[in-house]
Amino acid sequence: MTKPGKPLLAFTMGDPCGIGSEVMLRALVNRRARAAARFVIFGSEAVLRQVAESFDLRFPRMTRISPGEAPGKKGGVLLLDEIRCAPALALRGHATAAGGHASIAWIESAVAAAVRGEVDGIVTGPISKEAIHKAGHEWPGHTELIAARSGGKRPVMTMVGDGLRVALVTTHVAVRDLPRAITRRKVLETLRVVHHDLRQYFGIKRPRIAVCGLNPHAGEAGRFGDEEKRAIAPAVRHAREEGIACDGPTPADVVFTKRHLARHDAVVAMYHDQATIPVKMIAFDRGVNVTLGLPIIRTSPDHGTAYDIVKKGIADPGSTIEAIRLAAHMATCRRRSR
Amino acid sequence: MTKPGKPLLAFTMGDPCGIGSEVMLRALVNRRARAAARFVIFGSEAVLRQVAESFDLRFPRMTRISPGEAPGKKGGVLLLDEIRCAPALALRGHATAAGGHASIAWIESAVAAAVRGEVDGIVTGPISKEAIHKAGHEWPGHTELIAARSGGKRPVMTMVGDGLRVALVTTHVAVRDLPRAITRRKVLETLRVVHHDLRQYFGIKRPRIAVCGLNPHAGEAGRFGDEEKRAIAPAVRHAREEGIACDGPTPADVVFTKRHLARHDAVVAMYHDQATIPVKMIAFDRGVNVTLGLPIIRTSPDHGTAYDIVKKGIADPGSTIEAIRLAAHMATCRRRSR
Repeated sequence: MTKPGKPLLAFTMGDPCGIGSEVMLRALVNRRARAAARFVIFGSEAVLRQVAESFDLRFPRMTRISPGEAPGKKGGVLLLDEIRCAPALALRGHATAAGGHASIAWIESAVAAAVRGEVDGIVTGPISKEAIHKAGHEWPGHTELIAARSGGKRPVMTMVGDGLRVALVTTHVAVRDLPRAITRRKVLETLRVVHHDLRQYFGIKRPRIAVCGLNPHAGEAGRFGDEEKRAIAPAVRHAREEGIACDGPTPADVVFTKRHLARHDAVVAMYHDQATIPVKMIAFDRGVNVTLGLPIIRTSPDHGTAYDIVKKGIADPGSTIEAIRLAAHMATCRRRSR
Repeated sequence: MTKPGKPLLAFTMGDPCGIGSEVMLRALVNRRARAAARFVIFGSEAVLRQVAESFDLRFPRMTRISPGEAPGKKGGVLLLDEIRCAPALALRGHATAAGGHASIAWIESAVAAAVRGEVDGIVTGPISKEAIHKAGHEWPGHTELIAARSGGKRPVMTMVGDGLRVALVTTHVAVRDLPRAITRRKVLETLRVVHHDLRQYFGIKRPRIAVCGLNPHAGEAGRFGDEEKRAIAPAVRHAREEGIACDGPTPADVVFTKRHLARHDAVVAMYHDQATIPVKMIAFDRGVNVTLGLPIIRTSPDHGTAYDIVKKGIADPGSTIEAIRLAAHMATCRRRSR
C-alpha cells in the first residue's frame, strides 16, 4: 500500500476499439483528476498515441514500467503496456477478439496489483461483452471477473452521482424475473455490504440506509405484490437487529424525494431502473459505478464502449473523471479508517 | 359550456374526514388558483366551516346554489351542498361510511354537471378507498367511477409536474403481474389517447411522445425480457403508421434525462414507479394527476386523504392549486381547439 500523499490508482483502458482510450487521455489531462490521484495505466501506448494524433489531443507524459515491476513511489503517470495492440484497433468502432483479449488481460493485471496492495484502487474503462466473448472469455461482465479474481463474495453494484448513492439488490434482471430474484437473503446481504463499505470507504460512522419497496406504494400492505412482506421487510428487521441503521421498505417514489434523501446516506434499490432513473436524472454524464463488497476499491464510468462515436472525437470524460475522484476519495477514507 | 372568461370548474371536497376540506379552503384563497378559474364546490359547508374555525383559516365568500340549478354565469365561488354532513366529520381522521357516502355523491354530481356541459372540468379532492367500501360502494377508486359515469372507455392516468407529462400503461399493478398486463393493445391505446388529448387539451399540434421500455436497457435486444419485442415495439410501429409521432421503446433511464425530455412533449411509462419516481423528484408537492381518455377534463392533487395530519392544520395545498391551474389551462386549450 502506498503511504500518504495522493492515492495511486490502476486505470484500465477498456476495449481498445471503443472510447475508453479517448476518455482516458482526456481524463489524464484534467486538472481535477490529476489533483486527486496518481496513475498506473493498464493499456496500449500505440492505441493512445493513435487516438491523440487523430483528435489532436494532448498526450500526457508517461513513464513505462515493466510487467512484474511494482509501481512503488514513482510520480506522475506510469504505463504498463503488456499487450501488443495494433494502433489500428483505436478507431475500429466495433467488437474484435483482439480488443476483448486485451481488455481482459489489463483487468486481470490491474486486479492482481490491487490485491497485492501495489495500487490503492482500480478505475476500469468500458469493455464490450461481445468482444470478450469473441476472445473466448465467458465472463458476463467486468464485475464478475473482478469479484472472482479479488475474492469478493458479494459484489454490490452501486451508482453514485451528485451526492446520491444507490446500491442494487438485482442488476441486469428482466422485470418478469424480479419476484424470484429478490430474496430476504439478498436484501440482507446487500444491506450488510452497504453498511460496512459506507463506514470503510466513505468515512460515514453510522450510515443511515433507505430501503425501497418493489411494488407501487411498496405493495400497500400486500395489496399489490407480497415481496415487501416476504423478503424486504424481514431483511430490514434482521439488519436493524444487527445494528444497521436502515428503514423501509418505503415506496420508491418517496425514497428519491429530497426530503427523504436528506435523512439518509444511501439507498438500497431492488432493481436496475429504480436506481438508474434517479441517478441519471440527477447526475447525467457524471454518474459513477462503484462495486461495493469487494476487498479492493473499484469504480468505473457509467457508459459503455460507445462504438458509434469512436471516430468522432467527441467522447465526454466527465463520468471517468468522477470515477477517478471517487476511487481516490474512497482510498483516502479507507486509509483514515485504519 | 361557459363562454370566454375564466373556466368554471367543479371542485369536489373528497372525503370529509381527510385533508380535502383543508386544502380546498387554502386553495380557494390562493391568488393563482382564483386567477385561473371560477368554482362550483361539491362539498359540505358545515365541514368547511368547522375546519376554517379549527385552524383559523379565512373562509371564502360562497354563493349557495340548489341541486338541479345550473350554475350559469354567477361569479365567485358557488357551493352545492347536497349532503347533510355532520361538522364533526371534519376532524375525524379515519375512514367512515358517512364520509365514503358523501365523497361518492359529490363526485357523481360533479361528473353529471361536466357531462351536461355546465362546468368546464372537474378537480377532485382525495377520497378514501376504505371509506367508500364502508359506504357499500365497490369502486376501486375515483377514476373508474368517473370513467363509467362520463362514458370514458380508456382512462389513462397521467402525472404532470413542472413541464413533465407522463402517461401510464398500467397503474396499481404488482411488479410480478406487469409482463401479463403490458400488451401491444394497451400500449397502442395509451398512445392514441395521449396523442389525441395532447392536441385537444394541451394545444400541441403535433405531439412527440417518448415510449419507455419495461426492462433494464429496454431489454437489450431481448436479453433481459421480451416485452419490448412482443408488445411495446409493435405498438410504437403501429402508432407511427397512424401518424402518431412516437419513438421507443427507449431505456427509461435515458427517457428521463433532460436531453431526451427536451425533444418530447410527453412520456408513456409502462408502470407506476417508472412515472412517479421522476415526477415526484422534479415536482414534489406540485405534481398533479390527470385522467386522459375521458370526454371530460379531470385533474386531482397527487396525494391521499392523509388522515394522520387531519388534526394538525398543516396540509399543503400546492398540488391542489396546480390541479386547478392545469384543469383551467386544459379547458382554455379545448375552447381554442374548437
